[in-house]
Parts: sequence; structure tokens; C-alpha cells
Amino acid sequence: MTLLGSKHALMVGALHQPRTPEGRELLEIIAGQLPNIEAVAATHDREGSFPAEIFKSLIDAGVLRATVPRELGGLGLGSVHDVCLAVMRLAEADPSVALCLHMQLSRGLTMSYELAHGTDAGRRLAERILRLMGNEDAVVSGALKDAGAITRLIPAAGGGWTLHGRKILVSMAPVATHFVVQAETRPVSGEPRLASVFVPAGAEGLSVPDNWDGMGMRASASSEVIFDGCSIPETDLFLRGPVGARNDAALAGQAVSSIGLLGVYAGIAQASRDIAVNAAAGRKGPLSGGVGTLLAELDAKLYCLRATLAAALDNTDHYAHHALEDPAERGRVMMAPFQYAKLTVNRNASAIVEDAMTVVGGASFTSGHPLSRRYRDVRAGWFMQPYTYGDAVDFLSGCALQS
Amino acid sequence: MTLLGSKHALMVGALHQPRTPEGRELLEIIAGQLPNIEAVAATHDREGSFPAEIFKSLIDAGVLRATVPRELGGLGLGSVHDVCLAVMRLAEADPSVALCLHMQLSRGLTMSYELAHGTDAGRRLAERILRLMGNEDAVVSGALKDAGAITRLIPAAGGGWTLHGRKILVSMAPVATHFVVQAETRPVSGEPRLASVFVPAGAEGLSVPDNWDGMGMRASASSEVIFDGCSIPETDLFLRGPVGARNDAALAGQAVSSIGLLGVYAGIAQASRDIAVNAAAGRKGPLSGGVGTLLAELDAKLYCLRATLAAALDNTDHYAHHALEDPAERGRVMMAPFQYAKLTVNRNASAIVEDAMTVVGGASFTSGHPLSRRYRDVRAGWFMQPYTYGDAVDFLSGCALQS
Amino acid sequence: MTLLGSKHALMVGALHQPRTPEGRELLEIIAGQLPNIEAVAATHDREGSFPAEIFKSLIDAGVLRATVPRELGGLGLGSVHDVCLAVMRLAEADPSVALCLHMQLSRGLTMSYELAHGTDAGRRLAERILRLMGNEDAVVSGALKDAGAITRLIPAAGGGWTLHGRKILVSMAPVATHFVVQAETRPVSGEPRLASVFVPAGAEGLSVPDNWDGMGMRASASSEVIFDGCSIPETDLFLRGPVGARNDAALAGQAVSSIGLLGVYAGIAQASRDIAVNAAAGRKGPLSGGVGTLLAELDAKLYCLRATLAAALDNTDHYAHHALEDPAERGRVMMAPFQYAKLTVNRNASAIVEDAMTVVGGASFTSGHPLSRRYRDVRAGWFMQPYTYGDAVDFLSGCALQS
Amino acid sequence: MTLLGSKHALMVGALHQPRTPEGRELLEIIAGQLPNIEAVAATHDREGSFPAEIFKSLIDAGVLRATVPRELGGLGLGSVHDVCLAVMRLAEADPSVALCLHMQLSRGLTMSYELAHGTDAGRRLAERILRLMGNEDAVVSGALKDAGAITRLIPAAGGGWTLHGRKILVSMAPVATHFVVQAETRPVSGEPRLASVFVPAGAEGLSVPDNWDGMGMRASASSEVIFDGCSIPETDLFLRGPVGARNDAALAGQAVSSIGLLGVYAGIAQASRDIAVNAAAGRKGPLSGGVGTLLAELDAKLYCLRATLAAALDNTDHYAHHALEDPAERGRVMMAPFQYAKLTVNRNASAIVEDAMTVVGGASFTSGHPLSRRYRDVRAGWFMQPYTYGDAVDFLSGCALQS
Repeated sequence: MTLLGSKHALMVGALHQPRTPEGRELLEIIAGQLPNIEAVAATHDREGSFPAEIFKSLIDAGVLRATVPRELGGLGLGSVHDVCLAVMRLAEADPSVALCLHMQLSRGLTMSYELAHGTDAGRRLAERILRLMGNEDAVVSGALKDAGAITRLIPAAGGGWTLHGRKILVSMAPVATHFVVQAETRPVSGEPRLASVFVPAGAEGLSVPDNWDGMGMRASASSEVIFDGCSIPETDLFLRGPVGARNDAALAGQAVSSIGLLGVYAGIAQASRDIAVNAAAGRKGPLSGGVGTLLAELDAKLYCLRATLAAALDNTDHYAHHALEDPAERGRVMMAPFQYAKLTVNRNASAIVEDAMTVVGGASFTSGHPLSRRYRDVRAGWFMQPYTYGDAVDFLSGCALQS
Repeated sequence: MTLLGSKHALMVGALHQPRTPEGRELLEIIAGQLPNIEAVAATHDREGSFPAEIFKSLIDAGVLRATVPRELGGLGLGSVHDVCLAVMRLAEADPSVALCLHMQLSRGLTMSYELAHGTDAGRRLAERILRLMGNEDAVVSGALKDAGAITRLIPAAGGGWTLHGRKILVSMAPVATHFVVQAETRPVSGEPRLASVFVPAGAEGLSVPDNWDGMGMRASASSEVIFDGCSIPETDLFLRGPVGARNDAALAGQAVSSIGLLGVYAGIAQASRDIAVNAAAGRKGPLSGGVGTLLAELDAKLYCLRATLAAALDNTDHYAHHALEDPAERGRVMMAPFQYAKLTVNRNASAIVEDAMTVVGGASFTSGHPLSRRYRDVRAGWFMQPYTYGDAVDFLSGCALQS
Repeated sequence: MTLLGSKHALMVGALHQPRTPEGRELLEIIAGQLPNIEAVAATHDREGSFPAEIFKSLIDAGVLRATVPRELGGLGLGSVHDVCLAVMRLAEADPSVALCLHMQLSRGLTMSYELAHGTDAGRRLAERILRLMGNEDAVVSGALKDAGAITRLIPAAGGGWTLHGRKILVSMAPVATHFVVQAETRPVSGEPRLASVFVPAGAEGLSVPDNWDGMGMRASASSEVIFDGCSIPETDLFLRGPVGARNDAALAGQAVSSIGLLGVYAGIAQASRDIAVNAAAGRKGPLSGGVGTLLAELDAKLYCLRATLAAALDNTDHYAHHALEDPAERGRVMMAPFQYAKLTVNRNASAIVEDAMTVVGGASFTSGHPLSRRYRDVRAGWFMQPYTYGDAVDFLSGCALQS
Repeated sequence: MTLLGSKHALMVGALHQPRTPEGRELLEIIAGQLPNIEAVAATHDREGSFPAEIFKSLIDAGVLRATVPRELGGLGLGSVHDVCLAVMRLAEADPSVALCLHMQLSRGLTMSYELAHGTDAGRRLAERILRLMGNEDAVVSGALKDAGAITRLIPAAGGGWTLHGRKILVSMAPVATHFVVQAETRPVSGEPRLASVFVPAGAEGLSVPDNWDGMGMRASASSEVIFDGCSIPETDLFLRGPVGARNDAALAGQAVSSIGLLGVYAGIAQASRDIAVNAAAGRKGPLSGGVGTLLAELDAKLYCLRATLAAALDNTDHYAHHALEDPAERGRVMMAPFQYAKLTVNRNASAIVEDAMTVVGGASFTSGHPLSRRYRDVRAGWFMQPYTYGDAVDFLSGCALQS
């Protein structure tokens, strides 16, 4: 039997069973890939190298096109819950791989949403991206965080734009075939607007210094990407709202695209717990009272983490398909549970890794130990967008007082 | 709009929507009763008196027979999740009322299970009890905890048994029409067995001192009941396994009968959070940073509590209707999530009440304030069976190492 | 042997030995009073009645004049550390008594400081008050918190002032012989100033409704006091700075007058820990792992509480006798450690009481149990001035950024 | 002004002022070394190399002989409190250097104790070691933890012993001139006894693989040391009690030799807090409420850590010079506060580093950031002897129940 053990958890209702047939299919494919991933995880972490051979294998197995609609070449997975569960399973084997893969799977979800609900121009671009992902093994990385100055689109002489900026923490950058880049337009007249720009990796002016040296997530290749005047056709961007305006309706899309990333930390927690339980089970003699308490509390924290995350995922999936009269309200109803879950996941995952190390003892303090790696990785969760802690407090206390 | 506010929570997946039509029906009935309950809650708490008039009204409205099958006169509610949600709503208005009502609703669930799966004798007794509850307004209290010596069934001269013992913490005792009493048989020969004994309140030898004086849950009339040689016919008890044997299969029934009680503490947490948010919203001037942080964290704790509890309830409902090959394993799979949820609910509910008091300020330290009452009430959760903290650690660490 | 047990703690450096001979003398006197206090503590708590007979006995024993200089009739105790230790010992027996006594002992300290450093008018009034305390058994209560509108001093026709206002949470009010009342002057011309007004309990216009009904600290008689135009001679007030100006220098006096009150919660924590340890020690059979962990953590929390409080007290005593070039800096250097200690004491004391209840079990949930009383009492610490949690965050983050 | 800032903390009573003139002298010497240490800390951490040049400079400055008696060539520092304060200051600059230096300073303390209270043979050996430290720049590393089998002393043919075993986590091993090695005698007849063996680094059969690759404390060179039949004269070991007997009296020495190591984690906490405060102070715009709360709580945790540690250090210093009638009791009275402080220091230091990272944001997640290094280093505290968490719970709950 196993209750909270990672392999065949029996318990219902806390992030353990896929909600959709497509999710089940993806999990089965992934199960076949896990041994390969586990086999090289420690090496890539130590070297800080991207596991390109793993991604090749995941592409061949169809994992990277899982969230592309079937008619465009994918598996048609549409459930954020199931994406997160897949990410969690991958993260049990290698958190960096899971982090990268989430980016691609999340891209499929948001492009599918764009395809269904976007403007005409948006739908055309979304379909093009999805076809590339579904049929041509496109790997699409997201470039969100500016290194300093805001990345800008400047009107080009002959129409279209040129893109200027420098992004950091762009996971998978060295192997991505394309990027979706957050930028702001700087039109000659009219107000600046937010935009998501689609850029092929081979575009002139685009360079990837490949300088990632993280404390953790070392195999995620989360390097810089520089856009030094890349030409962007008018057709290759999604235009969003005006710069600077609070737009709670946009929170819906942010929730869909980001919440699945919490699966990375759920997987770290799960694996760490399993390592600690195995270590304790392998010891002779009676369990000391303090260690017994740690084990019981580890499982309580893990269950709480999984249940809270599952609830937030179900909430996201529900409202992704249900409009509310007020789109701003819908945005908040999707973002708030995500943020509640993020706080719970980050805290419980960190505590689980740390208590697992205490159970295992000094051996876990060496560089090569699977727990020392997870200890370094787990902290990344606190820096995941949206939000910083200060911004989360502002947003959530605002939601409370508005209610 | 309201997110985590108690009245019309929008969020999905975290103990806010009934899972069954019968659950919805019960919630609607209860909604109509809440104003009456709220109106007298403070008075009964101060006096430590049982709100008999409230229970009369709840009986008339059909609430006390909600979990009795329709064909035996009830609403046919069979979902533990929905029972817990109903208990939570009641607890937002009056935790003592919710505590008492849970006992009756839980009785209906366990008797229905007995009716479906019990021995012939067990099924006959279960049906009799359910008919009394469904058609004759029986109020059946449970007497579990021995005051000292174990309550015993001694063989009676002319057949049947006599019951001897003293029970404490028997909620609703002064108004119960019947009791189900945990006891052990002391047969002339053969091994002692566990038994649940059905005794009418008017039985000769039964007395209710009505001496409840709790720190909290003061309106729950959780007094002593004395059984001084009550005559028990052979037909009026459920015989269970031998005394002293570990029986993990029996954990399934304990989970079903007890987990809904966590709704009491969920309701206390919800109401306390609402009081704090209303107090903060009513203040002039900008929100101080410390108070904003408390509000955001209050909601994160409440969401986590509700999601974790909902997951454990869904797990209980699932396995209540799904056998596993190994009944002992099924027992553990039902009990462990309940215990994980109990730890989370108890901790988060206590923290929420305390932080709510910090937000509200010194006014909440007076006897009559709704938060001071909830502060006293919430601590009861830590003493709820099963288990004590020490026993929970033993059980859960055992589950972990077995997995 | 005993380590952290309350009776004869062996450990050094964590609030267990008096720093001064006068402190030792006071502790010895108090030791003789504790049996009487313990004997009636539960009764007064239940009834919400002030233990007047205890205070009579404490007055006769010289406890209430302990901080009055020897030459004015007292014991000459000048160490805040030792006052706090005495308060802690009293609180182990009865937190309400300790709360009240602190008010009087703190008065002696602040009046002694006024006598040494005040204006001529201030020194005359301070000496008068100290003589009343030292030689005439004056019991001087402090009235700080306004019920609503700010308490005001209006210029009187023939000179002097009249006092108008309503104060709440005035501990010992029904037995106080005098009050020191926070108020603001409303002069005909010139700016309003803060003032501390000395008023005899028999003053015309002063009334004490005696309506205290706290959740905890029930024997502290912390009732309202109404000042309905009491005549105040020019000589009977300490004039402070202008209303509304931030005055960090004044934090020094606030630290001296309030920090000792943390001894109340230290004493609650100590007594609760002792009750839990005694309960566990009295049980047969091996200690369960969860309970062993609770006991170890209880003592770690108690040690941490006592050590942190002792450090803040030593800091207060040091700077009470050492000027800094910048009086505002001195105020902050005295207030910040007090606030750090307050957060630690409040959190650890609450956690200790709660975990002690978990160790003891359901018996502690009845009204008469010594732990249920401490559970109600301990929460008062969160409402103690200065500051509220929000204000503490503002003050302490300001100190951090200024450093 | 600065309150809890690292440079010139004003507050009294919480590990900020030396207790002895020798401590003050050492702190002044160290202050002059800090710039050099800080300058190369990041490089040695990245490379995992021991800062030999720093130790050369510390030796020349007299730091490594600080706890050797003056008459034997040292500074004569005898206060554990002051040793810990020195270690804390060093750890603010480089935790690995502080870890190593503690080993040497602690050696001086324990050898001085041996010189005063040991057997004749013990005093001769202690004096020899101290003279080597005081006059000949001996660097004496301690080898405690066996890699697997217990390290043994086998009787040698011509008298004396041969030493066989493998030790791990021997800080400074590659540069030590001597080792003190925990071992057990295996005499031909009579019972095995514990022994501390003094071995020069150049002894035949001793080798240092220099294979340290820690997650943190990377510059501490905490490598393996192998003893493959080293010859040990009869004069070169301290014989202790029989193997396997509980010996609470020996806890006194363990407390003296190990508690100062907590200064490493105090220093990590202090430096991390300073980095966070500086980052927040450097930002434009108003402080967000969540960040303000983090800053206030950071300082509260740091103060609590420093105060609790200072109290335990004062306790150690007190009982190091005061016998109790029962030496076992003395051992417990010295060990228990050390363990309480260890729990507090480990928890608060970890929390401070983590919250500091949250304040600073994603930049702290890169390998080279001073906080990412401290995040890796701080975890070492949980593996410091004595005890593991399980053993600490057993010891402390035993102390509680014995009291």
C-alpha cells in the first residue's frame, strides 16, 4: 500500500488523478520518460547544462505538443489541472525539466484560448504558433522579465516594428525555436500598448548569451535573451491593453498561463518527502519520537499542499470556461485562489524539503545529494510571477476588503 | 463581488458548493434557519444553555432527518462533503448548534451504511433507528468517552444485558430522545467484544446530570450521562470486533462518522475572518502594512483550510462507496486524509480566530464579543476524536513508513 | 533537579534571578504571598471579582510600595528587570493580580524617574505621589485608553482645569485610591498639550461603573472610569509635549512603564508549561513520540521567551540610566527591543498555553481548569499598549530602514 | 543610528558586547581582518577552496591562539560568550572561515579546562597542545564523525596504540597541523573506553583525501581524514569513560566545546538581514505593506535569536566555573539551554535568510549572490553535533519530565 508515496497514491481529491482522458494520456507518456530523465538529472544539475537529449526524447514522444488542439497536431489537453499534474510528475524526477516543459505546455493553453476568443489577427497568429508546435516541433520560450529598461517595439520604416530589449530568466532559451516576448509599443502617435511578440530564434539581432548560473534550477538554461532591433511584422504580435492601466480582466489569462508552474514545487515536495520516508524506513531500531513527528507532519504538509493546489487548479479550469458578467471580477476570482495556493505551496514545499533533510541527516548536505539539489531548487518558487510577496499582500488584502 | 466572504463565495473547489441535490436542499433549508440561530447564539453561549427552541425549529424544518433515506422519512442526503458544508454554515452562526447537529446527521450516515452493509441483526436495528429519526423526530446522541472505568454490558438474568457506566462530553444529552453508547461486553464465556448500544433516554437507570460547563461550546449541553444498570434487549446493540485488537478496517466507519465535525471549525474560521474583514473595511484612512498583511494571510489560511478539508471529504465520500481488496488498507486510506485535514483545520482555524482578534483589537477581548466566543470554541477541535495529537503522530508516521 | 520548572530554575541568564538586592527582597516577600493568591485565584476568575483581600495582604506586606524610594517609604526597587520577574512570579499564581500589581510597581518607577529628571512642578507632584504610595497605602491606577472621544482638560473659571472624559480598561479601578489619567489640554490660547493628570478616587465627578466583563483577566477589575468635570488644580498634572507631534524621546518613558507587563505573559507561559509537564509525568506507560516532541518544544519556546524578555529588560534598565546624545535615538533604542520581545512573548506564550492544553487533553477544555483560564488570559497580551500589531510593524520597519 | 544593523548595534543584552577584556581585544583584532576576509569570500565559496591566505593572516594576527592562556602564549580568552561573538562577526563576512576558526578557539577552551581539572596525564597533554597552539602556530582540527565503522585504538606491540578509522566532516583538515580524534580503545582485557587522540598531521598512516564538496560551507575544507594504523604513544590521548554508558556529566564539556558554533548561524542571520534592509532602503517609492511586515519580523527574529543565544552562552560560562553537587545535573543544566538555543538559532536563522531573499527578490537566486550562499550555508546548523533533532527531542523531553 502507499498513501502519500509518489508512485501510486491512493487518495482522492488532492492532485493525484487526471481530470481528462488527454491528461491521462499525457501522464502515461511521461511515465515512460521518467527513467531517462532521472538518470541524467544529477549530471545536468551539477554542470548547469540543459538536457537537450531529454527534450529531444520528450518532443519525439509528443509531450511538447500535449496542449495543442488535436486538429492542429497535438493531444488536445485543455485542463490546467492535468498540465500541473504532469509538471508535478516531471518535477519529481527533475525540477528543471519540469520548469521548462511547463512553459511549452502553458503556451499551448494560452494560444488555444487566443484561438477561441481572440481578435481576428490574434486568432491567425495563435493558429500559426499552434501549428508550429503541433507539426513542426517548435519549442516556444517566454521572455517576460526585463533586465533593466523596458523592452520596446519601435515603428519600422517600411511598416511593422523593431524590437529592442534584454530579458532575463528565459528558461530553455538556448534550445527554443521561437520566443514570445513581453514588450510595449512606442507608436509615433497614440498611447503605448502592451504586446506579446512572436520572434523566431534565428531572427537577426536576437542573441542568447547562455549565461545562466542559478543557485538552483541549474539545468533550466534560464539565460538572458537580447533583442537588438529584430524586425517584427505587423502580423507577429498580440496587441493588449494600454500601458499602465490596471486591468483585472487580464488576470484570467495570467492565472491560466502561470498556475501550472506550481506543479514544479509540488513535485519537489513529493520527491523530498519520499526520500525522507525511505531513509527512515531503512533504519534499524525504533523510530525516535522526534522523527516520527517530523514524518507525520511532512505528510500533513504534503497533503495540504496538494489539496490546496488542486482546488485552485479546479477553480482555474472552471472559470477558464465560464464567463462572469464582470470580466474584472472573473480575473480576480481566478487570480486570488492561485495566489492563496502559491503561498501554501511555497511554504509547505520549502518546509517539506527542509524537514526531509533533517530526517535524512548530514549526508543531505553534500552537493550531490538529491535533497541538497531540491533545497536549492525549491526557493525559485518565491520569485515566480505573478506576484512578489509585497504585491501579493496588496492584491489579496484589496480583494478581501472589496468582498 | 465577494471572494472568500461567507455569503456567496464565488470560488470553486474549496468547500463552497454542495455535491448533491440533497445537499443543496439541506443548505437551502438551513439558510432559512440561520437568522433565528444567530439571534439567540450569544445568549445561549453566555448562559451555557441548550437552544431547545432552535432545535425544535430545526426538527420541524426537517434538518435533523436530512441524512435518513427518503424511504424512511428523510431527505436522503448521503454525501459527507455536503453534511460538512451544512455543518460549516451552521457553525458560522453558532458553533454549538453545529456541533450538536453534526452528531445527528452523522448518525443518519452511519445507520444508512449499516442498513446497506451490516449483519441481519444490525440492519434491523439500523432501520428501526432511521425510522425513528425519519418519522418520529428522534434525536439520537452519541456517548463515546468514558468518565473513568469502561462502560460494560453484563449478561442479564433473563437474557439480554444490563449497561453500566458513565460517559462525558455527550452533546445534546439533555434533549436527546435516544443514545448510542460505546461499551464492551463482559460475556460469561468467550471474549469481550466492542458494542454500540441503543438506549432510549427514558430507560430506567439512565440519568443526565446536565452539568456541562465548558470553556467553549457552551450551548452544546455536552454533559455527563450515567447508565446505572439499564436493561438492554439482545436486539438493541451492534456487536463489533473483539476488544483490544487493532482493526484498521474499522477506521472507515470512524472517518465517515467524524470528519464532518471539522465543518464546525471551518465555520468558526469563516465567521471570524468575516468579522475581521468587516472591521478593517469600516475603518477610515489607509490600511496599515501590518494589517494588510494579516488580511491577506487570513484569506490564504482560510482558503487552504477549506481546500484541504474538501479534498479529505471527497476522499471519504469516494471510498465510502468503493471497496478495496484489503479492508484494512481502505480504513487507512480514509483515516489518513481525515487526520491530515484535521491538523490543517485545527491549526488554521485557531490562527484565523487569533489573527482576526488582532485585526479587530481590544474590543474582541470582552466576554460578549463574537470573536471572544469563537476563540473559546475553536480550541475544542484539538480534543475531537479520533485522535489525540500523540496518537495521530503514531498513526500517520506508521502510514508513511508502511507506504 | 529542575531545569525550566517554575519553582527553582537552575538556568542562568533567562529571567530567573533578580539583578538587585531590592529585587531579591521583593521576590522573597512575594513568595510568602503566593499560597494565598493561588488559593482564591480560580474563584475570583470565575466570578470576575477583584481579590480585594489579596491586595490588602500585598499592601500590608509592602509589595505595593516596592518601587517607591526608601526615603519615601518604599523598598527602593529600581530595576525594570526585577519588577518584571516579580510580576512573572505573581502571574504564575494569578495573571489578573499580576496585571494589577504591575500598574502600581510601574508607577513607582516612572514617578521616581520624574523625581530625578522632571521639571520643578513635575518633581513636586512625583514626590507627593510617591509619598502617598510609600506611607499612606495609595493604590494608583492608570487610565489610558479613551472610550471614544479624547479626554480633555478645560480651563476652570478660578484657575486650574476641569477634566472630562471616559476611560476603559482601567485595571484595579474599583479599589484605586487615585488615578493618573492621560488627557489633552484645551487651553484658551496656545497649542493643546498632552498631560498626565493626578486625580483622587473620591474626586467629585469621578465615577467607576465597575462593569468589567473580560474574556480573560477577569479578576483585574479593568472597568470604565468616568470623569465628569472633576476639578484639577494646576499642581496636579504633568504637562508633556504638544498634541500630535511625533516624539521619539518619549518612547523611553513608555518602555520603562510598560515592558514589565510582559512578565504577566511569561508567568502564564511558565505555569502552563508546568501543568503540562506534570500531567505528562503523571501518566503511566511510555511517552508517545508526538507528546515528547510537544514537551521538548514547549521548553524551547519557554526558554526563548524568557531569554528574549530578559535581554529587552536589561536593555531598558541600561538606557534608563544612560543618556544618548540624541534623546529620540535613545527612545527608539529602548522601544524597539521591547517590541521585539513583545512579539516573541505574545507568540510563544500563546503557543505554550495551547500546546500545554494539547498535552493535557480534553479536561483542559472545562471552565474550571487552570489551563482554560490561562488560554483566555494570555490573549490580552496582544492588546497591550504600545503598540497594535499594525503600529508595531510601522515602527519597527521604520527603525530598520533608518539604521 | 543603527539598532539591529551589524556594524555598531546599540542594544544591550543580546549578543553585542564582549563580556571580558580579552574578548574585546579579540574583536578588535578581528575587525581589522574582516575586509580581507570579505574580499575573497565569494571566490573561495565558488571554488570550494580553503582560504589558506586568510588563515595565515589570522594566525599572524594572533586570532588562532586567542583562547590559549597568556602564560602559554595566547590571549587568555576564557569566555564562551566572547568566543561566540567573535565567531559571529567572522561569519558575517564568511561563514566557512568562522566555522573553521571556531574549531580552533573551542580547542583552546577545552584544553584550558583540561589543564585546570584533568588527570595528571591529561594536564600534561593539554599543556603540550596549548603550548603548540600558543607558540608554534599549531592548527588543531577535530575529527568526530565516523564515516562508517567506529574509529578504534588497538594495543601496539611495543606499548601504546595504533589508530584505525575514517572520519568525515573534518573542517580545516588539509591545513591542520594536528588532529584530535574521537576513538574507542579495544584493550586486550578490560572494558573499551572512549578516548580523544592527539595526532600530528604528518603521522605515518594519516591521509587527507581533500574531497569536500558541500552544498554550503564550501570553503571550510570539511573533508575526510583516514587513520590507517597511526602509532599513538600512551601519552597522546585523553582517556574518558567506558563505551556505551550514559554520562550526563560529560555534557558540560560538550556544551563548552560546541555552543560557540551557533555564532556561525547568528552571523549568517545578521548579514542576511543587513543585505535585505539595505536592498529595501535603496528602493524608491513607498514601502509596500508586505515588505514592511517582513522587515519588522526579520528584526524581531534576529533579536530573539541573539538574545536566546546570549542567554545560553552566559549560562554556559556560569556553570563552566561553578560546580553543582551532582555533576550529571550540571551537565544537563549546561546542555539543555544550548539545545533550546540551537533550535531557536537554527529556525530563526533559516527564516531570516529566506525572508531576506524574498525582500531582495529574484536576483538573490543566482549563484554569485551573497544571499544564495548564505541560504546554502545556513542549513549546516541542523546537522551540528550534539544532537540530531530526534535525539534533541529525547534529551529535552527527558529533562522536562525529570524536573
